[in-house]
Amino acid sequence: MKKAVILLSGGLDSTTCMAVAKHEGYELYPVSFDYNQRHKRELELAKEVAAYFDAKEHRVFTIQNVGGSALTDPSIDVPEYEGDGEIPITYVPARNVLFLSYALGYAEVIGAEAIFIGVSAVDFSGYPDCRPEFIDAFQQVVNVGTAAGVKGNSIKIETPIINLSKAETIKLGLKYDTPYHLTTSCYNGGEKACGVCDSCVLRLKGFKEAGAEDPVAYV
Amino acid sequence: MKKAVILLSGGLDSTTCMAVAKHEGYELYPVSFDYNQRHKRELELAKEVAAYFDAKEHRVFTIQNVGGSALTDPSIDVPEYEGDGEIPITYVPARNVLFLSYALGYAEVIGAEAIFIGVSAVDFSGYPDCRPEFIDAFQQVVNVGTAAGVKGNSIKIETPIINLSKAETIKLGLKYDTPYHLTTSCYNGGEKACGVCDSCVLRLKGFKEAGAEDPVAYV
Repeated sequence: MKKAVILLSGGLDSTTCMAVAKHEGYELYPVSFDYNQRHKRELELAKEVAAYFDAKEHRVFTIQNVGGSALTDPSIDVPEYEGDGEIPITYVPARNVLFLSYALGYAEVIGAEAIFIGVSAVDFSGYPDCRPEFIDAFQQVVNVGTAAGVKGNSIKIETPIINLSKAETIKLGLKYDTPYHLTTSCYNGGEKACGVCDSCVLRLKGFKEAGAEDPVAYV
Repeated sequence: MKKAVILLSGGLDSTTCMAVAKHEGYELYPVSFDYNQRHKRELELAKEVAAYFDAKEHRVFTIQNVGGSALTDPSIDVPEYEGDGEIPITYVPARNVLFLSYALGYAEVIGAEAIFIGVSAVDFSGYPDCRPEFIDAFQQVVNVGTAAGVKGNSIKIETPIINLSKAETIKLGLKYDTPYHLTTSCYNGGEKACGVCDSCVLRLKGFKEAGAEDPVAYV
């Protein structure tokens, strides 16, 4: 059975990727990261999502925090949604590079064919490491920088929702029975979502446009 | 003062890079990694090298081991030098991708201009992630995947010894007063070097060709 490593945050996008990878017939090896994120609660939910999809193994890697982001530094507040096209202070330096690097090492060791990452360049916060240019560049790193790549059986970085809006992602996920009730998106990480951070605003807008109801609770 | 992050293993190549970066006028921010390597002794030596060069800060990141290599799995023996052009079992999946990713996040946070990595594609073990193609691909990841890159002040991956043989590296290092007595290269990680693993064989050959004496002890 072909294997896929899935970057699983416990959020809406990555959980949709789990559903897509399952639908495509992969054996699922989700990986999650403890990087001292403010919304560490997502790790508990990631565990539930992994169980829901009957994952073969779920690895949680701990990454030492280097600071510099509102998501990992308790002294920097999470701002409300601004949407001004600037890179927000919630940007975590090199986050997706690190996540993909861990996924890559793991994928090589278990012999996975693909790594799924739920980035979207449509309804997103303006993070540079969510754009197709970044994914293409990282794919090239995989092709030339790993034994698998050099031997001609490179690991494919799969981005099933990169061109989808949040509403389209949700529609896709609902088609594949994605357990959105187990997901969390709020940067503030409370039991109930704040409804005003970038991530909450995009999620609520997505559900509204998809004509569906968000099953999680808001304050 | 301009800042550089230097990947410092405590080995010959990375210590030479410290000397080069110092010579080029950088404030030094070496980073080392504990990835359950067999030769963990190098971390102690890295600390001494950092002190020798009066580094501003020395960070040691712990990376959870995913296995699959003789360097990190005690059940796989380190082979003697073969030099048959194959990728050896000492290859650690995605190692330099991970190392560079940590260095990148750190470099962005401290505002460093450069990351030095002591890869060489001349006298090397055949690891794909030591080749210029890999460095070029990772540079592109930095350019398009980070806030620094997108804002037009990308962090430069510096590879001062990528085209140098081991002998040329040693000659360069001796010119800049590199403390080779503090370095270790042996994969087996003993107090005295084994003299027969890939890394020892390349080192001994390098010193011989450079007409210099290796100051470390061999069994």
